[in-house]
Amino acid sequence: MHPQCIRTRMTKTNSILILIISVTLTLIVQAQTVNDLAQTTRGLMPVPASVNWKAGRLPLTKAFNIALTGQTDERLRRYALRAMRRLERKTVLEFSHDLSTDPASAALVIETHSTGNPIPKLGDDESYMLDVTDQQAKLTAPTTVGAMRGLETFLQLLEADKGAFYFPAVSISDQPRFLWRGLMIDSGRHFQPLDVLKRNLDAMAAVKLNVLHWHLTEDQGFRVESKKLPELAREGSDGLFYSQDDVRDIIRYAADRGIRVVPEFDMPGHATSWLVSHPEIASGPGPYKIERRPGIFDPTMDPTNEKTYKLLKVFFKEMASLFPDAYMHIGGDENEGKQWDANPKIQAFMKDKGLKTNHELQTYFNKHILPLLQKDGKIMMGWDEIFQPDLPKDVVIHSWRGPKALAEAAKQGYQGVLSNGYYIDLMYPASNHYVVDPLPATTDLTPEQQKRILGGEATMWSEWVSPETIDSRIWPRTAAIAERLWSPRTVTDIDDMYRRLDIVDRELENLGLTQRRNQRMMLRRLAGREDVASLATLVSVIEPVKEYHRYQQRPQDMLSPLTGLIDAAQADAPAARAFDRAVDDMLAGKDRDANSAKLRSMLNSWRSSQSDLEAIMGNSPSLAEARQLAVDFADLQRIAIESLDALDAHTARDAAWRDASVRRLGEIAKPKAAIEIAIVGGVRKLVAAASGP
Amino acid sequence: MHPQCIRTRMTKTNSILILIISVTLTLIVQAQTVNDLAQTTRGLMPVPASVNWKAGRLPLTKAFNIALTGQTDERLRRYALRAMRRLERKTVLEFSHDLSTDPASAALVIETHSTGNPIPKLGDDESYMLDVTDQQAKLTAPTTVGAMRGLETFLQLLEADKGAFYFPAVSISDQPRFLWRGLMIDSGRHFQPLDVLKRNLDAMAAVKLNVLHWHLTEDQGFRVESKKLPELAREGSDGLFYSQDDVRDIIRYAADRGIRVVPEFDMPGHATSWLVSHPEIASGPGPYKIERRPGIFDPTMDPTNEKTYKLLKVFFKEMASLFPDAYMHIGGDENEGKQWDANPKIQAFMKDKGLKTNHELQTYFNKHILPLLQKDGKIMMGWDEIFQPDLPKDVVIHSWRGPKALAEAAKQGYQGVLSNGYYIDLMYPASNHYVVDPLPATTDLTPEQQKRILGGEATMWSEWVSPETIDSRIWPRTAAIAERLWSPRTVTDIDDMYRRLDIVDRELENLGLTQRRNQRMMLRRLAGREDVASLATLVSVIEPVKEYHRYQQRPQDMLSPLTGLIDAAQADAPAARAFDRAVDDMLAGKDRDANSAKLRSMLNSWRSSQSDLEAIMGNSPSLAEARQLAVDFADLQRIAIESLDALDAHTARDAAWRDASVRRLGEIAKPKAAIEIAIVGGVRKLVAAASGP
Repeated sequence: MHPQCIRTRMTKTNSILILIISVTLTLIVQAQTVNDLAQTTRGLMPVPASVNWKAGRLPLTKAFNIALTGQTDERLRRYALRAMRRLERKTVLEFSHDLSTDPASAALVIETHSTGNPIPKLGDDESYMLDVTDQQAKLTAPTTVGAMRGLETFLQLLEADKGAFYFPAVSISDQPRFLWRGLMIDSGRHFQPLDVLKRNLDAMAAVKLNVLHWHLTEDQGFRVESKKLPELAREGSDGLFYSQDDVRDIIRYAADRGIRVVPEFDMPGHATSWLVSHPEIASGPGPYKIERRPGIFDPTMDPTNEKTYKLLKVFFKEMASLFPDAYMHIGGDENEGKQWDANPKIQAFMKDKGLKTNHELQTYFNKHILPLLQKDGKIMMGWDEIFQPDLPKDVVIHSWRGPKALAEAAKQGYQGVLSNGYYIDLMYPASNHYVVDPLPATTDLTPEQQKRILGGEATMWSEWVSPETIDSRIWPRTAAIAERLWSPRTVTDIDDMYRRLDIVDRELENLGLTQRRNQRMMLRRLAGREDVASLATLVSVIEPVKEYHRYQQRPQDMLSPLTGLIDAAQADAPAARAFDRAVDDMLAGKDRDANSAKLRSMLNSWRSSQSDLEAIMGNSPSLAEARQLAVDFADLQRIAIESLDALDAHTARDAAWRDASVRRLGEIAKPKAAIEIAIVGGVRKLVAAASGP
Repeated sequence: MHPQCIRTRMTKTNSILILIISVTLTLIVQAQTVNDLAQTTRGLMPVPASVNWKAGRLPLTKAFNIALTGQTDERLRRYALRAMRRLERKTVLEFSHDLSTDPASAALVIETHSTGNPIPKLGDDESYMLDVTDQQAKLTAPTTVGAMRGLETFLQLLEADKGAFYFPAVSISDQPRFLWRGLMIDSGRHFQPLDVLKRNLDAMAAVKLNVLHWHLTEDQGFRVESKKLPELAREGSDGLFYSQDDVRDIIRYAADRGIRVVPEFDMPGHATSWLVSHPEIASGPGPYKIERRPGIFDPTMDPTNEKTYKLLKVFFKEMASLFPDAYMHIGGDENEGKQWDANPKIQAFMKDKGLKTNHELQTYFNKHILPLLQKDGKIMMGWDEIFQPDLPKDVVIHSWRGPKALAEAAKQGYQGVLSNGYYIDLMYPASNHYVVDPLPATTDLTPEQQKRILGGEATMWSEWVSPETIDSRIWPRTAAIAERLWSPRTVTDIDDMYRRLDIVDRELENLGLTQRRNQRMMLRRLAGREDVASLATLVSVIEPVKEYHRYQQRPQDMLSPLTGLIDAAQADAPAARAFDRAVDDMLAGKDRDANSAKLRSMLNSWRSSQSDLEAIMGNSPSLAEARQLAVDFADLQRIAIESLDALDAHTARDAAWRDASVRRLGEIAKPKAAIEIAIVGGVRKLVAAASGP
């Protein structure tokens, strides 16, 4: 799925959709107060289907142990042992090295009766029940994978007071709302080493995601070893590819966490890296080089050439045995057909076969690929573009276009997975993704059709992520998507989601994710000095530009350094969220004085570090592109304080002040170095309120 | 080499040695002022053999490029390209993707005439010349590996002013003082994944270390795959071992950075993990289990059993072809011979062969191993214990006992590598290691004998390091050892070393090392909250206890969580060093008022975060073990301020105050949770001074 394309085709519908859902949601949210909710949801994310808190606590002491009863799958043993080690790391307590063999005395007893599939499959039973009393915790699940999900919930229950750690007493009954809860990682545009994938699999398991959709071939890189066709990776990857041992390692690691691995080999477009070593299957004349730019490119496989299918037959056969999952994703997106239009041989072929459009030619291509997959026992999955009415009914449509396209496919009998609305590379706040429901309450699908909506996937397109920054682009926001896909439809409170997202964020750090720890390091590098507190203050209110404006405003390519201020900045700027919330509450008359004081306290704190910030920005050549942001930030502070002064004094600022402020805010609102200051909207509201009627 | 042993045998001599050298050093240091030195050494570490700064600057712009002339070894090409990418990451500038083919216009021209050994060898020529003018930089080296060293120097030249980055004009001529400059990583006690090793190889190359001594077998783990004897790793490692592909990957990665990989297989002691699968070669009755505790253990190979040599023959033959380096380390340390004493068959054997002591039996063992290595073309290396007079003269003695043992071996014709004094796991400050010279000016060795002192190795014994903390135990201190082994003997200024160590520390972060970024994360985990500034303040003045007291005071084993405050604390507490320096200067009458003000400023800043610190410590169960430290810290602040008040008022405190203060300091000096507050010494001096004569 390519950015440019999304930018041109997707954004409008998506924005409107989000708007509609947002309005609906606001109504729901107001029915329940945040404090009530916090009592209900505590640190749990995703929120389980049913939770009943009880009186009492199960203390966590160094005598803590886990016993398995029923069956003792090795995967479950390992998961339980890892859970113990994770608890140890977090609490610095030290438990037994082995699992308990005495269910009567173990603090947690896990009862399962089936191992389930040793390599997870779509439809695996992931349900579990968890009961914690002040004596013992009991986790019951039909299968190993359900126990894994329940263990993650159990770990999220841990709380502490001054004296000790404990698990609150509770009775939980839980199962996922959707069967397909995925994260797509694009290893094509920027290669991601194994340790990046592994720590992200750990994080996925922690929030109960169950599909790693692994985007392995792209214009910019062919990332998987074929033993039959070793030239593909050798010539198409700069040496940055996964060996088959690496792939097996990842599949095993994922299976150990109850996660499926669905590979994607994008075709017939997005295929430049194939054509470096196999120009003979291209639709246009070669030679081809690995693409370095972002965008949509012309090189496309030739669907009229038997050599294409011969090569793909060999390749798919090998990949079918390498990847155990039943589903194989063939991409199929964003083929603009320029090489087809320009090739007389292909035009003649189309005429001969009665194929009127490029879409029909692509369908012809897909129909020829389909039996190759089927012969190897695989089910085809592809982006929206592959959809057409005479596909077999088990094909899965992966929708980047939106819920409407998805619903249409479901009506025609196809299964679907939603990614529209879950494009985490667009840099929208978690709340935007959180409100997108693959199956909204307003759906007109029949219950039978609804079953075909399998779930959704967050998509980490990797134009602008390096191993250093990728965790910060995926987490914590993807945890909000994971909740949308697991929890009941009614779990929708955004404030409570953010409260829990902060907790999850810290827990993910403990698992080894780097989204927070790398940020300060990046700031130290940019500043070229040790103390970067004032730069961190700026970073707490800035965000990278949304959508695909980054490339337009600050063009780079796949080999460019991703170490600028924009790369250190993250979506969902935390201080900006707090600021905006205080503005909204104050202007709505909610705790007016307290919110005014809170705003002043934030503003004063920012002001106090302003001169140091300007010194850092002024001294560092690598921050030169963003120097204006510090100036803008100072003006925002000034305008906000002037507004608050007027509001607190119950006087109105005059029109000249208003006009000057609005004009200045207009300048400030323009991104610098592809970065926005995220409090501009809040300050605008203050200015409007301070200017009187 | 085992801790207990070192504790009992090594410490005294070592301390005395350090004392003597320190005194000598102080005299040298005073000859030159720090500011003068900073002009000379700038950001360079290790300091080159000869540096002549010139007027002018070579600006770094996006037109920067590197051209190779002479020969164009692929390793050098890759190194040069990586250097460009590193410059890009640091500066956020964007250069050409490829090397320049036009030496006339390239900013840096590298001229080499020989590739040298594709896999580095002992004795490789690492010299280089580097000339930077305002027009161009020219790096000349006989071989690829010299060019690598020179490129690291070039990268360290980079400076910035407000407007831009630049390289100052300079003429450098450089070569290492010692041929063997190593870092030993113990993968036995705690397994270290490949990414840990790779980032540490990057760091080693950055400070011109050239040997990774890889400690692969220990009582606590057998970490390398043998295809011939797969049971060794399978049963001896909990599944945590390096496949042969992994080993080749590391060797290739190291060779790409001009670093040799010398494997160590420790025997006949430290061998428990061998005996799990091969109890028949043990000197005592089995069965054996992987050892979990730290310490010296009895299980020892049986030197009287032909099966032992048969197994080792197979093993060494396989390892000899896996590891290309000419040297193979067989450990040989800390065999206490208890199983030998207790085994009548072995006792009878010794009597029969006329072997009077266990040392003689071990020598018998070594003599039987030696031909196995020689047959495979390997040279034997071992710890001090293997030394005895009739070994072949190419054997290398690795000295943990000290320079005296090393010199003794050299006198008898043996080559030696020093590690005594470079035990970075002992948690001493960098300055302690920095003053240890393998070949001090006072040496009585002849020039011929001096040549046998090959160099030294920092030793990262891994009882108490995890992948999360290992970088913080190795870096930045090992950079000071790297300088001792590379730079001229006369480079000895400790203040200037610390100034440059801070720079190197930040550069290593940019390379991917985690010593700093992980610390804050660990504090967040311990505190269970986001804002840990006050806890970080405490951490800036505390240090883990030195030597091997940690285990005595806070026993753990190999499976224990290494996530306590002691694990977040680091050697060389930075604020404590600044505090002590200000105390010393003030009491010496140097900038008296400024230093008094500096101390007060530090104390006031600490005081201002004290209540938050106590809240964090009080609320977190995982910090409960260390709560007294916060109380102690507050008392240190109070006593220091009371002392300063008296000193600034030129009055003397009375005896009662002095006695109470000294008593309290005595209590505070006792470690809590195996942690020391590193400013106690400084405060003691203040108390003494404030108490009058």
